[in-house]
Amino acid sequence: MISENSYFNNNVKSLGYTTAEGKSTLGVMEPGEYEFSTSLHETMTVIEGEMTVKLPNSNEWATYKAGEAYEIDANKSFLVKVGTQTSYLCQYQ
Amino acid sequence: MISENSYFNNNVKSLGYTTAEGKSTLGVMEPGEYEFSTSLHETMTVIEGEMTVKLPNSNEWATYKAGEAYEIDANKSFLVKVGTQTSYLCQYQ
Repeated sequence: MISENSYFNNNVKSLGYTTAEGKSTLGVMEPGEYEFSTSLHETMTVIEGEMTVKLPNSNEWATYKAGEAYEIDANKSFLVKVGTQTSYLCQYQ
Repeated sequence: MISENSYFNNNVKSLGYTTAEGKSTLGVMEPGEYEFSTSLHETMTVIEGEMTVKLPNSNEWATYKAGEAYEIDANKSFLVKVGTQTSYLCQYQ
């Protein structure tokens, strides 16, 4: 089954699926600032657009462009700002 | 706006958005065989999984793995077979 998910008043939408390596979601964010919380370790890869991210335990914002990735441990919160519609792959690995 | 699209009895779902370069969709396919028709030139990139594709005017099937891409002209039909849940980026460029 391909799951459909919507967050932040439809400003973030994603599709969930499973590969041999684990669960993944593909998503799109509208311009805005969001706080996400993890329940599993996540690897986030920017597909198109760019994300400015404040990782858990960091005081600095870092920008990730298409093709770049960052990781977040389980049970953490992180902040993401996007200025244009931005797409991503989130792998729960 | 992030558009939500569903095809082939929910066996293919996608999210549509726009970047500075043009329109894109991110999608996921369930295992199966599908015939797609284009109205614009498309660049298809496999994100996870793999697709076996018969391009317009081709008699041969070719397999594209994660990170690999193929292009289809406007107003053509092409066939895609996937054996596991497979995700893709379709750029209308």
